[in-house]
Amino acid sequence: MVVEASSCVFCTIADGTEPAAIVYESGELIAFLDNHPLFPGHVLLCPREHYVTLLDIPSRLNAPLMDATQLLARAVETAVDAEGTFIAVNNRVSQTVPHLHIHVIPRRRRDGLRGFFWPRQRYHDDAAREAVRDAIEREVHKLLS
Amino acid sequence: MVVEASSCVFCTIADGTEPAAIVYESGELIAFLDNHPLFPGHVLLCPREHYVTLLDIPSRLNAPLMDATQLLARAVETAVDAEGTFIAVNNRVSQTVPHLHIHVIPRRRRDGLRGFFWPRQRYHDDAAREAVRDAIEREVHKLLS
Repeated sequence: MVVEASSCVFCTIADGTEPAAIVYESGELIAFLDNHPLFPGHVLLCPREHYVTLLDIPSRLNAPLMDATQLLARAVETAVDAEGTFIAVNNRVSQTVPHLHIHVIPRRRRDGLRGFFWPRQRYHDDAAREAVRDAIEREVHKLLS
Repeated sequence: MVVEASSCVFCTIADGTEPAAIVYESGELIAFLDNHPLFPGHVLLCPREHYVTLLDIPSRLNAPLMDATQLLARAVETAVDAEGTFIAVNNRVSQTVPHLHIHVIPRRRRDGLRGFFWPRQRYHDDAAREAVRDAIEREVHKLLS
């Protein structure tokens, strides 16, 4: 899915026409520092090719992407002496650049990162939960069939 | 890395002794609804084996994990008619269950999810950014050598 790749800032970083603080490169992937980090060491990992979301990438990129995510999480944690990492992908909603990027962010306890995992909800009842479960399972089966 | 796997709630879901609203299973992985969802359809994807973080999993699980993450993102988005998804992993810091779980969360515009990607910072200057970039790149090279 090549959508306006010519005007995409991450495409211009990938092809070398826009400078970036690159920390990792392979034939398929590139990773560089986010210019507005949550914390120093905040890295963005992208496929060089222009795909909008994780849902759009061809399956051949899945293994390299997860290998590189794991590699970068280990590297970032050691490099900035972090206690943990936060890995995140925004697909469409809250996605500022429409070129898949995996955030790898160093974390420390009491680092002031706002609690983003709330407010939590509950399913109204077992039937409501089962309806959602069944809908997702059916889609999984459709996609796998 | 098998750490107190016997008392781990996700291990008991994986071995079938604890019930869960399962949406996907394979020989290596299991996915189920989070009991306290950010939004209905919030799924947790885990390896059946007990590994604490994404940094700890053996590389043979990387491809299956990313394949299943992509599959579940597509399935969740369609099943609950979402406009996007949020994929997230907390490694150690903010990690409530010490068994790797990948959050797959449906998103809609103006869904009330708190802005978690702030406050953003800037590097003090080019030298500060370069020091961080260099430290990460050196760790990447060490890990790949």
